[in-house]
Amino acid sequence: MSELAKQYLKENRDAQLDELKSFLSLQSISSDSTHRDEMNHTAQWTADALTAAGLEHVAIMETEGLPVVYGEWLHDPEKPTVLIYGHYDVQPVDPLHLWETPPFEPTIRDGKIYARGASDDKGQVFMHIKVLEAYLKSEKALPVNVKVIFEGEEEIGSPSLDAFVEANKELLKSDVLLVSDTPMLDKGKPAVVYGLRGLCGMQIDLKGPNSDLHSGLYGGAVQNTLHALVELLATLHNEKGEITVEGFYDKVRRLTKEEIETFASLSDDEALKAQLGVTDLFGEEGFSTTARLWARPTLEINGVYGGFQGEGVKTVIPNEAHAKISCRLVPDQDPAEIASQIKAHLNKHLPKGVTLDIQMFDQARPFLTPYDHPAIQAAGVALEKAYGSPVTYTRMGGSIPVVETFNTVLKLPAVLMGFGLGTENFHAPNEHFHLENFEKGMDALVDYLHELSHVQF
Amino acid sequence: MSELAKQYLKENRDAQLDELKSFLSLQSISSDSTHRDEMNHTAQWTADALTAAGLEHVAIMETEGLPVVYGEWLHDPEKPTVLIYGHYDVQPVDPLHLWETPPFEPTIRDGKIYARGASDDKGQVFMHIKVLEAYLKSEKALPVNVKVIFEGEEEIGSPSLDAFVEANKELLKSDVLLVSDTPMLDKGKPAVVYGLRGLCGMQIDLKGPNSDLHSGLYGGAVQNTLHALVELLATLHNEKGEITVEGFYDKVRRLTKEEIETFASLSDDEALKAQLGVTDLFGEEGFSTTARLWARPTLEINGVYGGFQGEGVKTVIPNEAHAKISCRLVPDQDPAEIASQIKAHLNKHLPKGVTLDIQMFDQARPFLTPYDHPAIQAAGVALEKAYGSPVTYTRMGGSIPVVETFNTVLKLPAVLMGFGLGTENFHAPNEHFHLENFEKGMDALVDYLHELSHVQF
Repeated sequence: MSELAKQYLKENRDAQLDELKSFLSLQSISSDSTHRDEMNHTAQWTADALTAAGLEHVAIMETEGLPVVYGEWLHDPEKPTVLIYGHYDVQPVDPLHLWETPPFEPTIRDGKIYARGASDDKGQVFMHIKVLEAYLKSEKALPVNVKVIFEGEEEIGSPSLDAFVEANKELLKSDVLLVSDTPMLDKGKPAVVYGLRGLCGMQIDLKGPNSDLHSGLYGGAVQNTLHALVELLATLHNEKGEITVEGFYDKVRRLTKEEIETFASLSDDEALKAQLGVTDLFGEEGFSTTARLWARPTLEINGVYGGFQGEGVKTVIPNEAHAKISCRLVPDQDPAEIASQIKAHLNKHLPKGVTLDIQMFDQARPFLTPYDHPAIQAAGVALEKAYGSPVTYTRMGGSIPVVETFNTVLKLPAVLMGFGLGTENFHAPNEHFHLENFEKGMDALVDYLHELSHVQF
Repeated sequence: MSELAKQYLKENRDAQLDELKSFLSLQSISSDSTHRDEMNHTAQWTADALTAAGLEHVAIMETEGLPVVYGEWLHDPEKPTVLIYGHYDVQPVDPLHLWETPPFEPTIRDGKIYARGASDDKGQVFMHIKVLEAYLKSEKALPVNVKVIFEGEEEIGSPSLDAFVEANKELLKSDVLLVSDTPMLDKGKPAVVYGLRGLCGMQIDLKGPNSDLHSGLYGGAVQNTLHALVELLATLHNEKGEITVEGFYDKVRRLTKEEIETFASLSDDEALKAQLGVTDLFGEEGFSTTARLWARPTLEINGVYGGFQGEGVKTVIPNEAHAKISCRLVPDQDPAEIASQIKAHLNKHLPKGVTLDIQMFDQARPFLTPYDHPAIQAAGVALEKAYGSPVTYTRMGGSIPVVETFNTVLKLPAVLMGFGLGTENFHAPNEHFHLENFEKGMDALVDYLHELSHVQF
């Protein structure tokens, strides 16, 4: 019965691409408070698209931060209810000069659409909307009950979603969570993700003298905040790539023998080196690259800044120095505990002559779901049909904090069935999305909703 | 015979202050190319003042950059020839909102004149012009032969002066260089500077993967350029505040017992801590603060940048990381040699997975003149007479590259006899100059020219 929906998608492809371009041209950068109007505008666009698709009770719901867009179609209490989650916000676009075409002027080249958010995650949010529309326009019904929730704060760590989900437990009650925000294994190789890393982030601010100083007049007399910063940051890892924060690895769950073997077999170091343009990979000794990416924790410095950044030289001793740090966490690490351990480490190793201020950012718990769950197995069936290729059950190095929230608060199993490719420059210049996966992905989603209608929860 | 000149200065004080205000109101910011007309205007003003003073062959001489103002009075081949150097350009004025009165509207408050350039260096250039005028108007002669050179690029590192001096060796040939661009020891305490630190600077660029990476997707697999940078920069110093670059200290001239004692006696750590607002001073172990500032080399990180610097968090692995470094050097370190040693150190300690590019900036040799030179002792005599207080022979932590140029190209001993105070906000908002030193300084210069007439070179 899903053939009519697929037919509808096929016939409306061109119009959909135009619509997708409109959606991607909205500058929904959640981290930038000057884009607040554009965020509201994007929420409205999303709500209108859901309404046009035939969803019911579509609403832009306020949170403590940016709004959530909600919609539903609940017509058969006998059928399972699927909660579809996605996000309409995107990452910042700097450095802008590295984009071949402007990030908010979507452009199709070589079968790919280039724009910020093309794959992460507006492109995939759009696919879900269009799959629901296809069913509702062609067959006047969905094979399952559906609730949709698209948020606007995923790229800043979903600070308002926990409270929102907690406050709307009844509204969001469902049988399974469906998310398309994870990558496929490779081109033509669909994947279902059963594990995600967690996250904790912070900003480090060092202060020294009460103003910037001339290095000729004061150099040699006082601590340079940048010296203190590099010294402090350099204590966080050892030469083996291990994190030296006390207690950091204590709660890391050991990999099973099967996982060690699978991850080793999925590691293609030469291909990754070629893709990234590096002569060496680097990371924690004793683990395969895939194990390091999916199942081992990291501590990354995401930004460092202080002093003079202009052209040429300025002989200044800067009185402030800053760094941004974030950790990818794995089961059973606790983000709050890890954040405290890092804070303790930084305070313990703080060089003389500077003061330290730490500002905590968002946290997300790591997530792991049993991959023999029938809703996950059904996803495998739908993906194999659309791609004609076996599905791989993978973990992922990134975080989708809300998956853990839905799991904890609503007790939902999560099916992470995404259509992006690891090479599509999420969070980087020239983000893009392969139109091949736009088409096959929507077909797979059509089949998946159909498959889900038979699953017993 | 210098009493007539002093009398002339006294009688013309008020008119001179008005003239000084005109000079200081000219916006001669050399680093700002939009001020080019104002620079030419200021050069013309300076030349006119020299002509009015009675100097001969006054000329605005072109260089590869901004013009040099030249003048001379050469009447007695039996007498020594003094080359007076100063600069008519000034530092930028931002942040403008911190100025109590506008930087180019000179204002007298509490016995100080407030304006950009009041002490560095237009105020002191003006003093020299007026001293020459006083002699030539009152006595129709100078006690020595004089050549004057005022440049317009000191605040941007004198990029054209080396070539200019090299091309005008014959014109500038003299017996001694006299510069008033260094601070006194303290209010009422005159100083002659006999040593300056040198300088070498460079920019370090690290590159890793071919684009920024998402820390969720790639964290753990590749070197993070910021990790490599902090690790690399942290190798440059040890915990004692010593520089660990091989060979760095090899040519550093040992301090004499007398210097060690003098520098220790001039160190007031509590006052410096209070001034800078720090709880601890920090620097190379085993040396007094003044020794560290004046006579020991430093290696300072002046800027570090890479990755995300915006608000909040961005989970990026940056593919580029940058740092700016500069060294203050002391005799007999060679800037080019030190730069090579640092380069070798950085290459040797470069972490895996990144490439290193180093860009060299300007260099200046350290400078030390024997303080028993008769021209320097004569300066002491003149200063003690004007101030009624013993003169201190000091070094300075900064560089005046042109002093080294004149020393190398023209083989001139340099007498650095300045009248600014360290608290007068050079390069900062609310720059000012104590009128007390305007008056006593001109008297000292009158006496110094007289004293110099007896010195054998």
